[in-house]
Amino acid sequence: MEVGVSIERAIEIASLYPLNYSIENISIKEAHNRILSVPLESNIEDPLFDNSAMDGWAVIESDCIETPVNLKIIGTSQAGFNPEFVVTKGHASRIMTGAPIPQGADSIVMIEDSETIGDEVIIKGPARPNYIRKKGENIQKNERCLNSGILLKPPQLAIASMMGFSQIPVIIPPQIAIIGTGDELVEPGNKLKPGQIYESNTKALIGLINEMGCKAKLYSFVSDDLDKLRETFNLASRECDAIITSGGVSMGEWDLVRKLMENEGDTKFWKIQIKPGGPPLFGLWNDIPLFGLPGNPVSSQVVFMTIVSQWISNSCNYDDIDGPKLFEKIRVKLLSKAKGSFNKVTCRRINILFKENTLVANVLNNQGSGNLRSMVDSNGLTLLPIGVDGEKGDFIDALWIR
Amino acid sequence: MEVGVSIERAIEIASLYPLNYSIENISIKEAHNRILSVPLESNIEDPLFDNSAMDGWAVIESDCIETPVNLKIIGTSQAGFNPEFVVTKGHASRIMTGAPIPQGADSIVMIEDSETIGDEVIIKGPARPNYIRKKGENIQKNERCLNSGILLKPPQLAIASMMGFSQIPVIIPPQIAIIGTGDELVEPGNKLKPGQIYESNTKALIGLINEMGCKAKLYSFVSDDLDKLRETFNLASRECDAIITSGGVSMGEWDLVRKLMENEGDTKFWKIQIKPGGPPLFGLWNDIPLFGLPGNPVSSQVVFMTIVSQWISNSCNYDDIDGPKLFEKIRVKLLSKAKGSFNKVTCRRINILFKENTLVANVLNNQGSGNLRSMVDSNGLTLLPIGVDGEKGDFIDALWIR
Repeated sequence: MEVGVSIERAIEIASLYPLNYSIENISIKEAHNRILSVPLESNIEDPLFDNSAMDGWAVIESDCIETPVNLKIIGTSQAGFNPEFVVTKGHASRIMTGAPIPQGADSIVMIEDSETIGDEVIIKGPARPNYIRKKGENIQKNERCLNSGILLKPPQLAIASMMGFSQIPVIIPPQIAIIGTGDELVEPGNKLKPGQIYESNTKALIGLINEMGCKAKLYSFVSDDLDKLRETFNLASRECDAIITSGGVSMGEWDLVRKLMENEGDTKFWKIQIKPGGPPLFGLWNDIPLFGLPGNPVSSQVVFMTIVSQWISNSCNYDDIDGPKLFEKIRVKLLSKAKGSFNKVTCRRINILFKENTLVANVLNNQGSGNLRSMVDSNGLTLLPIGVDGEKGDFIDALWIR
Repeated sequence: MEVGVSIERAIEIASLYPLNYSIENISIKEAHNRILSVPLESNIEDPLFDNSAMDGWAVIESDCIETPVNLKIIGTSQAGFNPEFVVTKGHASRIMTGAPIPQGADSIVMIEDSETIGDEVIIKGPARPNYIRKKGENIQKNERCLNSGILLKPPQLAIASMMGFSQIPVIIPPQIAIIGTGDELVEPGNKLKPGQIYESNTKALIGLINEMGCKAKLYSFVSDDLDKLRETFNLASRECDAIITSGGVSMGEWDLVRKLMENEGDTKFWKIQIKPGGPPLFGLWNDIPLFGLPGNPVSSQVVFMTIVSQWISNSCNYDDIDGPKLFEKIRVKLLSKAKGSFNKVTCRRINILFKENTLVANVLNNQGSGNLRSMVDSNGLTLLPIGVDGEKGDFIDALWIR
């Protein structure tokens, strides 16, 4: 077991014990926000054939150098049908957007630049070759258009469909157990006794797990009872692909998650050089990966975002740029001082906004790790390196939370 | 009917005919990515009582000015229980993180700064009043913590739970019909005949509608047949809260959506000053709002993002900052020229990235409105005002697509 590891080392150790996942084929119509599990190469070119970018006339450019000019209408090229005729000198074909260019034609005149009289059209504007979309100009056959491990957003769904895929292989969301602990915690909806508060961490974890492409399974809350905790760990390790606990990882007598993992589990690391973050742990319980997240609500979310999410991403081979993620890594200019820490990377809650073409950050006042409100009122976290304070006006690394 | 309206006017007109929606109460555990339909005020203070931010000792600060000092252990304050004793001069109480501060104590000494011998503790480090989280320091009773119309992300779920809400009122996703049209289009999975291509727009629309908090209902594709289109409009207007069509809105003979709306519907506007965007229309069919989106795949998505999404947001009273949205409005520095248009706002596809603390944008090469690939390969759109070219080095408004 390593104690007090860096963020990078924590991710590295955890990634030696990846989350297992399987894949399934689903309809493209159901695939929004799922994660593609293979790269997709196009079976077809795009465009599949030369076609018109405009409603208008398919003509021979050299016929239209001087306008107005009268051309004889030879036919119509309609979207969805291959024109059987040939456009020859002095002739034009009606054409609609997306319709194939008839043989012989090399340019398009917009409908707005024409007038029809009987079986002739008076061409009044320019004939443009670049109103023809050329076969293969966007996508070559067998070209890779989508990488493996990407989140399927609207443009990706459209292009997969355009390439002809009706079914695509995606990751089945791995199931992650959530086990809350803590004697002071009560489910909302119940009455509080003195000293008690409402439980909140597991609700945030459900959302965070979803956003990382996994599925949360919430187990009964465990008050500080070692036997019941062991039983819940055993159940969860049979039913889920990983376990995330909330609370009970500190050095106190009542920190049962840490105690149980120390005595009967296989702890790989404990404590990370991150603030807030407290003493998260990672290990195996019955060979299933287990993250022990701190009980402080801010620490819980910060550790998930900075470490657990990266472990999921590594485990499932998510694409670095277009895979599921909880933040954009950016640079911001500090509008006020953000205090760092001599031995930890410091994640202060900040509000990121634009000011005179620059992304700037206001540092929130109350930075207590118990102050859940600070997560709601902010939209980002500083990433102050160990031993570094951020001074007003400094550009620093930060996470912009989506 | 207005023709050739500005983006703002298009949103304004459409918003006179809002999408209807209802609300329902759901469990906080199921509420991730749903939209809160009322503001939430806290029934309780946070913290609910003075409590410790650390595992350690609750002491009287003036006892610990000179250290080391021995204090007699008077008891333990454990999370979840109200301590019944009082800390008096010369005494200390064990305390765990989150546990109530016993009466009499005014400071906390960290466990790391102490040593226990029998019934005494040797205090070796400082006693800090600011390790006590004071009652109400984060949230006052009856304070509004969450606005109406926000997307329920992990921190919002946690704070609602912490405030004691087990059920919360959310918007029932309005149902939006998608009706695709176009003779050249074939469902993926089938064989293409010459002149045909695979349909893709409706797949992107499913995702876009989902991301705006609504639910898509996909109707059978309508080839260019006016009677079948009318029948589908009638069915969709009975079953859904709005209709979005794809294709068939241009001025051609075969543009049946426009023709049907012109002759039998109630068109409120046609054509928007946006590029790409073609000739979208908006109106009512059987009193149900209907957006006719252009058939070009890029135009379809761009019009949804810039106009339809804003109409949904206005209709459902989404919060401007924290409601569902498809992009962040930002400022970027152009790395190359982005050509505008003399009579339209121009949405060129760009790649946004950080370079020397500044958000910069590469303008993609192939900007054809039929080039779906450009939507996949970009992560943003310029918002070049009418009559304005963006020159290399200019800062311009842009949309950063999530």
